[in-house]
Amino acid sequence: MVRNHNDERQSGRFAYDGLDRVMHEKARLGILTSLATHREGLSFSDLKELCTLTDGNLSRHLLALEEAELVEVKKGFVGRRPQTLCRLTRRGRRRFLAYLEELERVVADAAAARAKSAAEDAAPLRKGWSPA
Amino acid sequence: MVRNHNDERQSGRFAYDGLDRVMHEKARLGILTSLATHREGLSFSDLKELCTLTDGNLSRHLLALEEAELVEVKKGFVGRRPQTLCRLTRRGRRRFLAYLEELERVVADAAAARAKSAAEDAAPLRKGWSPA
Repeated sequence: MVRNHNDERQSGRFAYDGLDRVMHEKARLGILTSLATHREGLSFSDLKELCTLTDGNLSRHLLALEEAELVEVKKGFVGRRPQTLCRLTRRGRRRFLAYLEELERVVADAAAARAKSAAEDAAPLRKGWSPA
Repeated sequence: MVRNHNDERQSGRFAYDGLDRVMHEKARLGILTSLATHREGLSFSDLKELCTLTDGNLSRHLLALEEAELVEVKKGFVGRRPQTLCRLTRRGRRRFLAYLEELERVVADAAAARAKSAAEDAAPLRKGWSPA
């Protein structure tokens, strides 16, 4: 289907199919952005801190992201201390960038709505509706 | 807590607490953006078409958004034909704007990560990691 993103009335105009469900989850979005920002990888404990997640929650989300092959988790050492390191896979980086393009469309659409709404603030209300 | 949004290592830096779970759902994001774009309200069938949702799915999401008092659904008429009209409440508009501010932060953080990543593409890889 050819889409004209300027046509507010077009079928599927606000479907946002690119918002991949594996990534479109609040905690996972935090994890993915953290890892995208720290390309060299982050330790489990740093990631936990940056995203304010519990061990259990972070483990659960990392597992889902690993299963989707978006993130890789590797056991390593810092000196003699064992450390779990996490980072985006190449596929994860690519998919996250595609996801972000759609997210940018949501933000752009909403910004357009906000601007339109501000312009309408002075306009008379449509019949049949009381003021919201 | 005072947050410095430029500090990539700060606790909770990527927590995105403002991504309200009621709104942060793919279909609901489409519904809310549609309604924000059409401030005068949209009919159930227009909304269904714009978001590519089934009757059942749209009803379910509208109910959740109504319960959170973000959206109001009103039975009306176009001539003699009954029509269900949906629109954002004042509270819904305010909450959606706050949500969008957080979403813009995600996009800005990810854009910064993308720029950083591009700059690092030519840099040597960190020891202990094979290329992703």
